[in-house]
Amino acid sequence: MKITLLMVGKTTHDGLQKLILEYQQRLAHYITYDTLVVPELKNIKNLSIAEQKEKEADLILKQLDHSDEVIVLDENGKMVSSVEFSKFLENKMLNSVKRIVFVIGGPFGFSPRVYNRANQQLSLSAMTFSHQMIRLLFTEQLYRAMTILKGENYHHQ
Amino acid sequence: MKITLLMVGKTTHDGLQKLILEYQQRLAHYITYDTLVVPELKNIKNLSIAEQKEKEADLILKQLDHSDEVIVLDENGKMVSSVEFSKFLENKMLNSVKRIVFVIGGPFGFSPRVYNRANQQLSLSAMTFSHQMIRLLFTEQLYRAMTILKGENYHHQ
Repeated sequence: MKITLLMVGKTTHDGLQKLILEYQQRLAHYITYDTLVVPELKNIKNLSIAEQKEKEADLILKQLDHSDEVIVLDENGKMVSSVEFSKFLENKMLNSVKRIVFVIGGPFGFSPRVYNRANQQLSLSAMTFSHQMIRLLFTEQLYRAMTILKGENYHHQ
Repeated sequence: MKITLLMVGKTTHDGLQKLILEYQQRLAHYITYDTLVVPELKNIKNLSIAEQKEKEADLILKQLDHSDEVIVLDENGKMVSSVEFSKFLENKMLNSVKRIVFVIGGPFGFSPRVYNRANQQLSLSAMTFSHQMIRLLFTEQLYRAMTILKGENYHHQ
């Protein structure tokens, strides 16, 4: 199984990007993981937030294959513990999912078309974090999940 | 009202420390905020985890004043949204709390003595994050809370 993180806009903060890369390097020992960045919209002055979301949705949906399991990371999604998240991933592996794509949107959430395409919505916290920081949180959780599945010593109950 | 973050062990990761400092600098515009680091225990080879927690508890409790409102950040704590967290802080201000001390422990949690001293337990996520990363999450949430209370544009519902 392959895991892809699809994001809107580059990670602009160097320090954050460096931390994310560290977890990505660790992840490479466990699973095929990559990131896809959909460019941030330009010339948005005359667009409403809803219109921006629709344009973003076009870019996001274009990246998805029919066979992809799509998980939207969203505040309103289901909250799971780290162990539950690792079981969620294990379950996808056992069900021969070829690729899971996790999607992180911008600060205003997604168009309904993205929610409709999603197989599930997950939330990393009841709190709102910057959509840039969510990338770090997600990457750490993915790494943690892999160490849990391998029975390694990173995670303590 | 003053806010203090009390932590066990230095933040060892430079990149993380840099990010935390950025939010701390932003916070300085809103509130008196400081951090206190209780040194990580040394020569722990012959100590059980429970014994380590007791020694940590001694160091933690020594930092607290009788008048402090103590909030332990713990996986089993109450989960709140960012807006609820800002209201929680506002409520403390209105009730003339002199100092709130948020406490982040090590990977194994706290001694019962620390839980007993705490006025409340809060959780930043149903997921477990490294106790070093929790510092970044907390600092961002505190900053976010301040911008919410000021009606500023950082947080989007």
